Amino acid sequence: MALKDLKMLEVEIKVRIEIEPIEKRLGELGAEFINRTHQKDVYFRHPCRDLKKTDEALRVRNVKDKYFLTYKGAKLDPETKTRKEIQIRVEKGVFNLLKSLGFSAAGEVEKRRSFYQWKDLKIYLDEVKGLGNFLELEGTSWKDKEKIFEILEKLGIEKRRLTRKSYLELLEELD
Amino acid sequence: MALKDLKMLEVEIKVRIEIEPIEKRLGELGAEFINRTHQKDVYFRHPCRDLKKTDEALRVRNVKDKYFLTYKGAKLDPETKTRKEIQIRVEKGVFNLLKSLGFSAAGEVEKRRSFYQWKDLKIYLDEVKGLGNFLELEGTSWKDKEKIFEILEKLGIEKRRLTRKSYLELLEELD
Repeated sequence: MALKDLKMLEVEIKVRIEIEPIEKRLGELGAEFINRTHQKDVYFRHPCRDLKKTDEALRVRNVKDKYFLTYKGAKLDPETKTRKEIQIRVEKGVFNLLKSLGFSAAGEVEKRRSFYQWKDLKIYLDEVKGLGNFLELEGTSWKDKEKIFEILEKLGIEKRRLTRKSYLELLEELD
Repeated sequence: MALKDLKMLEVEIKVRIEIEPIEKRLGELGAEFINRTHQKDVYFRHPCRDLKKTDEALRVRNVKDKYFLTYKGAKLDPETKTRKEIQIRVEKGVFNLLKSLGFSAAGEVEKRRSFYQWKDLKIYLDEVKGLGNFLELEGTSWKDKEKIFEILEKLGIEKRRLTRKSYLELLEELD
């Protein structure tokens, strides 16, 4: 896949963790705490494409009174969750608009997210409703992959513990 | 079709006119000039639904640095262009996002639009590139239909001159 715009790339790993020791270690490493938000995500089915099969995703994220529409392409890397990502700010009417176009809600993920920054990386500590606690590390270019594995080592997290599954997939496994 | 939210309704007529006499008459009627904008609209094909056949439309409108995504449902009335309409403010990335979901550009309409207000009605004088000049009168509830025909009479425009076609359809007829 040709990725003309590298800003559209999401280089990401996810791993199940315990919040407190990681939070403590992030402080020691000098990661900067940015904010804590409550996020409600709704994932959608495409009217004529099996997004599970194509490994794509379409999501509306609601944070307070803000709404974001996000498309995620198929994963591009066997180690990480790296993929094309396009996110735009939208308005609440997006739900009605998607429905009118034949998209239907496939599942919901609700979480409390603590957001830290370390170098160019975004660090998220997620408390996911009904699922547990996770760490996500996110960059925007292939170069960030090294930094991600560097901080994982500093946090004492082994690579084999990473999951490439989405919260929605992990929640569906519980059903 | 059940229309739970009347704000989503667009009651509209369109008619080919000459700008200057109508502009003058609008002034005499006390219509308030609001603004003049340059609008670039791109209409999209749905990945698996023939929007021409279903009489729906999906459009991205660009006005200066602003972008709007609009869904229009099938027309609901034989006399006017009344239909369900959902419009949300979006960002420029909407083009890439739609493309990734399988939507493709079907055509473009570019116009200079002078916007007037008269009672609850929106009045547009449109100079459409490659097509000519049009008047559009727009309300948001069925009650506005009466007002629309009232002002049409005041403007000396006969009902039989109205068209239910979109600018895109009219442009396509020229090809």
